[in-house]
Amino acid sequence: MSDTTQERDHRMALSWTFDAGDPVLARALTRAEPGRVWQDTLAGHHGAGPQRRALAHDTDGLVILARRSDTRFVMPGDPEWPASLADLAGAEPISDRGGVPVGLWVRGPGHLGEWVDRAVSIVGARACSPYGQGCAGELAAELAEQDWTVVSGGAFGIDIAAHRGVLSVDGSRTVAVLACGPDIEYPRGNMLVLQQLAEHHLVVSEIPPGGRPTRIRFLARNRLIAALGAGTVMVEAAARSGARNTMAWAESLGRICMAVPGSVHSALSVGPLHLIRERRAELVTGSEQVLELVSAMGEHLVEAPRAQPHRLDRLPAALMAVYEALPARGRRTPGEVSLAVGEPVQSCLAALGALEAQGLARVDDDGWRAVPPGSR
Amino acid sequence: MSDTTQERDHRMALSWTFDAGDPVLARALTRAEPGRVWQDTLAGHHGAGPQRRALAHDTDGLVILARRSDTRFVMPGDPEWPASLADLAGAEPISDRGGVPVGLWVRGPGHLGEWVDRAVSIVGARACSPYGQGCAGELAAELAEQDWTVVSGGAFGIDIAAHRGVLSVDGSRTVAVLACGPDIEYPRGNMLVLQQLAEHHLVVSEIPPGGRPTRIRFLARNRLIAALGAGTVMVEAAARSGARNTMAWAESLGRICMAVPGSVHSALSVGPLHLIRERRAELVTGSEQVLELVSAMGEHLVEAPRAQPHRLDRLPAALMAVYEALPARGRRTPGEVSLAVGEPVQSCLAALGALEAQGLARVDDDGWRAVPPGSR
Repeated sequence: MSDTTQERDHRMALSWTFDAGDPVLARALTRAEPGRVWQDTLAGHHGAGPQRRALAHDTDGLVILARRSDTRFVMPGDPEWPASLADLAGAEPISDRGGVPVGLWVRGPGHLGEWVDRAVSIVGARACSPYGQGCAGELAAELAEQDWTVVSGGAFGIDIAAHRGVLSVDGSRTVAVLACGPDIEYPRGNMLVLQQLAEHHLVVSEIPPGGRPTRIRFLARNRLIAALGAGTVMVEAAARSGARNTMAWAESLGRICMAVPGSVHSALSVGPLHLIRERRAELVTGSEQVLELVSAMGEHLVEAPRAQPHRLDRLPAALMAVYEALPARGRRTPGEVSLAVGEPVQSCLAALGALEAQGLARVDDDGWRAVPPGSR
Repeated sequence: MSDTTQERDHRMALSWTFDAGDPVLARALTRAEPGRVWQDTLAGHHGAGPQRRALAHDTDGLVILARRSDTRFVMPGDPEWPASLADLAGAEPISDRGGVPVGLWVRGPGHLGEWVDRAVSIVGARACSPYGQGCAGELAAELAEQDWTVVSGGAFGIDIAAHRGVLSVDGSRTVAVLACGPDIEYPRGNMLVLQQLAEHHLVVSEIPPGGRPTRIRFLARNRLIAALGAGTVMVEAAARSGARNTMAWAESLGRICMAVPGSVHSALSVGPLHLIRERRAELVTGSEQVLELVSAMGEHLVEAPRAQPHRLDRLPAALMAVYEALPARGRRTPGEVSLAVGEPVQSCLAALGALEAQGLARVDDDGWRAVPPGSR
């Protein structure tokens, strides 16, 4: 049995024995080889619980279960292993979860490592509004068109809207990071999309096949979503939302935190607007701004919104003064104009001629009047 | 004739002779007394235009016109003169307008100086949306309830929505700063509101009675709106909007710049979202946040939006693990739970008992199941 095969077995066993993001396992793996950590676990050095689970572990059963759903186990050192996950080693645990995963269970034809080289994560409320759904879908589709991978959690609401947005673009790439085994289509309502992702994209989890989603696993999963993206965008989130936990991870991982604003009357704006207000997230209104932030300097540059040039803007001050002195209804004589603007009648007549030439003034027997721009 | 009466006459004459925010007049007044500036103007030292206007000036006519509309002329040194306008002396001219006004033409029972001691300015699009109208109206009303004065421009859209919001509050105070004579009800559509303001609040202008609104006067007027408020809030503004000019003034005057966010799909969000994104304005969602920014430190403190406390949050990790191990449908035996969480059966039974006591678990002959919080 080759060393890597052995390491793979040990890591798979540890992945089954310890729950997602268990800091005990993470710490142990920073100190010893997986093989050693596995032996220590069997010996009970990492607690009675893990020991009991370890003794009940059945490698062959797990391998068979994984094969059934075409799930592969990807571990550090594998070509497909995402380099970005290494950043989790340094990050402080949040809500008692953390560390580099011992391995990932992966379904789908994509090459995880390459796909997340250029990836943006999109998170938000499950019970989102049509507005948030639209924002997430458009943003994801536009990122995909720009050849970026979109990472999300496969959940209801913003997550699935983002995945769906990507599916609408040919040759696009999206990664769903689940809080249950990659073979579990949860939530049921997203089954069809998740099946498409497993067939044409990527479904990834820290949880071995068959594993059920739990609250703790959602919290652990969030750190992977944050770590796999160059930045994370929050689209709609109520005051109480898992997306805030993901943003906290993105922050502590030094990823770019972004948020899409919305109506101040919507409870779903509380999350994004709070982060923007606190300057913990950049305000983004669309993909250009996201790409400007996550791209290498200068690769994408966004222009400040410019006002449409307007004919009156280009008028010299002198002409403008005369134009303003003209009534829209009624008429004014050059003498009246002259008094109004305080310039000699001669120069006023010259100005009036110039305005007439530009179609901004008209004269008849009663005198001069203004012509609103574009009303010709 | 007393000195102040003389100065008043000179300033009124200068106010009629020079257009609003004319930097020539502003400069001259920093160098010489109004009386001297007036003589110099008559002598043509400030240009042929002003000289011609000055020679055509009729003080008595102007005074009569002002009296007709109960308009008073307020000048520096008068008790009613707003101290905050002095900041305009230092500020760089914007779009060729600037400086401290030579005086203000004021209508209404309010005491301008006292009223703008605690004032917030609200600006935005004329062609605003119902959303912006609602935001401006609510914000203005809430500020008025907190005993703050609301300054705006009496224009269509956001301006008038702000004034109307204040009118809905008893004992409230609002100031309309116009780009025409204070006796001119412009725009016509706002006539009734402007009449109410002149009767019960304040209508203020740099333009003498009878003066028509012009493009240049709107630009000059904006600096007064910015100067009179401790801060200015932008509510909806397209890329091309006068409100951006007002915000630029607020910025250069060191006033607090604030903006209300909105849908990223609305063209009227471009102005506010751009300022927030560029960190040239603080994101505000309501009056608390505005007051927190403009009030003396600590007078108004806003709490970060807090998630509602949730029973599951308060569960110890051990109990949580057991709770998560329980199925919502079906049952699990203590042995199964023990294997799932990797804890001895004894401690699992204790945990199950604790969860049952909290109504989070229920047991029957088939085993244990989870009870969602609050579903009791």
